[in-house]
Amino acid sequence: MKQETIDRIRKFTEDRDWDQFHSPANLAKSIVIEAAELLECFQWSEENYDMNHIEEELADVMVYCQNLLDKLDLDADTIINKKMAQNEAKYPVEKAKGKADKYDQL
Amino acid sequence: MKQETIDRIRKFTEDRDWDQFHSPANLAKSIVIEAAELLECFQWSEENYDMNHIEEELADVMVYCQNLLDKLDLDADTIINKKMAQNEAKYPVEKAKGKADKYDQL
Amino acid sequence: MKQETIDRIRKFTEDRDWDQFHSPANLAKSIVIEAAELLECFQWSEENYDMNHIEEELADVMVYCQNLLDKLDLDADTIINKKMAQNEAKYPVEKAKGKADKYDQL
Amino acid sequence: MKQETIDRIRKFTEDRDWDQFHSPANLAKSIVIEAAELLECFQWSEENYDMNHIEEELADVMVYCQNLLDKLDLDADTIINKKMAQNEAKYPVEKAKGKADKYDQL
Repeated sequence: MKQETIDRIRKFTEDRDWDQFHSPANLAKSIVIEAAELLECFQWSEENYDMNHIEEELADVMVYCQNLLDKLDLDADTIINKKMAQNEAKYPVEKAKGKADKYDQL
Repeated sequence: MKQETIDRIRKFTEDRDWDQFHSPANLAKSIVIEAAELLECFQWSEENYDMNHIEEELADVMVYCQNLLDKLDLDADTIINKKMAQNEAKYPVEKAKGKADKYDQL
Repeated sequence: MKQETIDRIRKFTEDRDWDQFHSPANLAKSIVIEAAELLECFQWSEENYDMNHIEEELADVMVYCQNLLDKLDLDADTIINKKMAQNEAKYPVEKAKGKADKYDQL
Repeated sequence: MKQETIDRIRKFTEDRDWDQFHSPANLAKSIVIEAAELLECFQWSEENYDMNHIEEELADVMVYCQNLLDKLDLDADTIINKKMAQNEAKYPVEKAKGKADKYDQL
């Protein structure tokens, strides 16, 4: 995400004085709620989906993720790289290649 | 997210030949599943949370969001700015300031 | 659900003095969390699922639903029949038969 | 749930020829989607909730649970009692009383 997009998300919250509602727990709830709306695009069919609707719901999830990063003073790249290092260790290429199993089943 | 972080996420999937499992529907399911694990950090208390755990689960949500963007050939900034424009129109500052109501209740 | 099953669920909570954690909001979070664990049984494949795992996760969802009914002093049959009456009106057989569309798309 | 409520739910699906959409995976998705709508009743406040809305969303979750039981030919009391036996073993009263910790933290 570009800095100007992040700034737009922050300004949106500030302008509306919504930081008061953005407790970490409320933002975590909001991420699940929007993620479920994204899933709704695939509720009865995995193939026939409405791209506009998906774009909107995915954007909602990502905006709330940014809100939570901001609230907890976290940096996206830092936490994602830390997690990717864990994932790379948990799913070694030679074991995980072409398999959808969980790491403890490999 | 920096380009090198995005590249690391893409390489992780490619190296493991996991693109075959990354249907849009499966990724939408994965986003909800990880979002619910994030919510679990706040299941019984909104105040006492484990930051390490939150960082890991939030990272998981964001990685799957990136996977879905990649799968559908979407650009994060494009879809988020489009949605922010909608949000700004739905929640005018003068009406929404300091209120947690849904736009159709304002 | 039989009365003795309901009684067992209630006794489990009482014996552990867990009513203090069962705020309606915490139970709603718990229902989503368990529902997402149920969905995890279908994360990468819709066909190859582990019945034992599904049974456990579905049971978890239903137990938390009963906890929430108890907390809010609601009766399952009353609220379900009220909702089914709404569903029957929103999805008239002649319009909805064989279609997965939402009521506002019929 | 009374037998006549269960019968009403089954008849609703049959009359609309909706069994074709009720794959186990689609029903699992539906349970999460409705559970998230229930959670939405508590998105920004844990105390000020709309009981009518909660009743409707909780009913939706329970109806889809019944649909999944039907689809997989499962009996609610059987799977719940099996899970309660596990829960009782995982959370012994003397250890778990008054604590919200997960069983592996007790």
